Amino acid sequence: MKIVLLGSGNVATHLGPALQQGGHEILQVWSLTLSNAAKLGRVLSADFTDDLGTLDHSADIYIISVKDDVIGEVASSFPFPDKLLVHTSGTVGMDLLGKDRLYAGVFYPLQTFSKQKPINFQEVPVLIEGSTEEVNTNLNVLAASISKTVRAADSAQRASIHLAAVFACNFSNHLYTVSKGLLEKRGLDFNLLLPLIAETAAKVQSLDPADAQTGPAARNDQETISRHKEQLKASPDLLQLYSLMTESIIRCKHPDQ
Amino acid sequence: MKIVLLGSGNVATHLGPALQQGGHEILQVWSLTLSNAAKLGRVLSADFTDDLGTLDHSADIYIISVKDDVIGEVASSFPFPDKLLVHTSGTVGMDLLGKDRLYAGVFYPLQTFSKQKPINFQEVPVLIEGSTEEVNTNLNVLAASISKTVRAADSAQRASIHLAAVFACNFSNHLYTVSKGLLEKRGLDFNLLLPLIAETAAKVQSLDPADAQTGPAARNDQETISRHKEQLKASPDLLQLYSLMTESIIRCKHPDQ
Repeated sequence: MKIVLLGSGNVATHLGPALQQGGHEILQVWSLTLSNAAKLGRVLSADFTDDLGTLDHSADIYIISVKDDVIGEVASSFPFPDKLLVHTSGTVGMDLLGKDRLYAGVFYPLQTFSKQKPINFQEVPVLIEGSTEEVNTNLNVLAASISKTVRAADSAQRASIHLAAVFACNFSNHLYTVSKGLLEKRGLDFNLLLPLIAETAAKVQSLDPADAQTGPAARNDQETISRHKEQLKASPDLLQLYSLMTESIIRCKHPDQ
Repeated sequence: MKIVLLGSGNVATHLGPALQQGGHEILQVWSLTLSNAAKLGRVLSADFTDDLGTLDHSADIYIISVKDDVIGEVASSFPFPDKLLVHTSGTVGMDLLGKDRLYAGVFYPLQTFSKQKPINFQEVPVLIEGSTEEVNTNLNVLAASISKTVRAADSAQRASIHLAAVFACNFSNHLYTVSKGLLEKRGLDFNLLLPLIAETAAKVQSLDPADAQTGPAARNDQETISRHKEQLKASPDLLQLYSLMTESIIRCKHPDQ
């Protein structure tokens, strides 16, 4: 397919090369900021612009990959009512692309993207939604050309998946940040925790996370929990987070308590 | 070295075979519950007992690997004052083994162990502490025979590392459980999140977790955050956890807000 990318952030930066590897042609990159459009355009050997008025009309699909709160704005300025327009967001509905738009869709890659870290797109589930059967078919073919896991998900399902992903990914990553801070305060090396972090994620690839739960809260080991709270008493925010997580684990593992 | 294991839980179950592979001999397994001692004893082709009075006297080291709140009890009933006695806990001090004990130590493998999931012990950092230089040397040799990462850590440092590990591992795993629950409430499949969970942990093997942070809180995307809170309004506990984590991420990424 011939594709125009509208956006140059983390998702577009990973999606562009994956689509090329899938055999598709990126005609053009548009971004609000010309230098960003140029940077990704050069990586993809594609044309680039910051002017929606100069968009290439010959693409089969236009993929909006910008911050959620700008999607509506970009969609309403998109000049081709007859073309297939999709966004890549997990959180906003397909209707943000325009309620009267005939060919609209969502192409949501369920992954955490950082520009610095390469990714194997074959392992990234892509959740698709289309305004018509024809759009569904096209998005399914496009997604299957870059990922081995493609699922249909309507906007309500996608919102649930995105919320779950925030807990599993964004919040977990923040816990890594917190743990790094706790170690550095004592001059200790965060690298010591890396095998633990890797194994914690590896375990749930085959075990149910409730069965994989270990640690003082899982054992309802109140003595250790008290010692930890004592260690955190100078950091009220972390103490509150510790208490909330610990109570939540105890409720899960010891519902009779 | 000749070793007696006191305990048959998750840690002992993984440590025993690793020590054997490191060239050591497990003479005996003791557990409070004879059937558990027997089970691990058979795996290790070692003697087993539930009676501290019948412990084999010929070992070089006795490794207590039981719940933290029973370590003191086991240590005070341990019959050989002249022998090297260590525990494997991250949370309790070495002094729990007896203040007057000449040869005492800690041998703390920094990892999450579940009986069902095999582990490569070479990748598990081992934190050691000894009551004498001789003990330190012996523990260092023992640890280096099973792991490529051995560090000295006193009881205060170990307590900080253990607390950080609770955030990075136990709490992250609980977030996986929470995310699974959110999906299952909608009939959606937790497996969809597995690549995301794997990648989140993989990213921080090379990126600083603060730099790897993505998601609505990292972008301070209040519209998405409001939508998520709306989705959670029927689960006050999860809503509180969501709010606390989100505020904590915003404080980290947008300290000026």
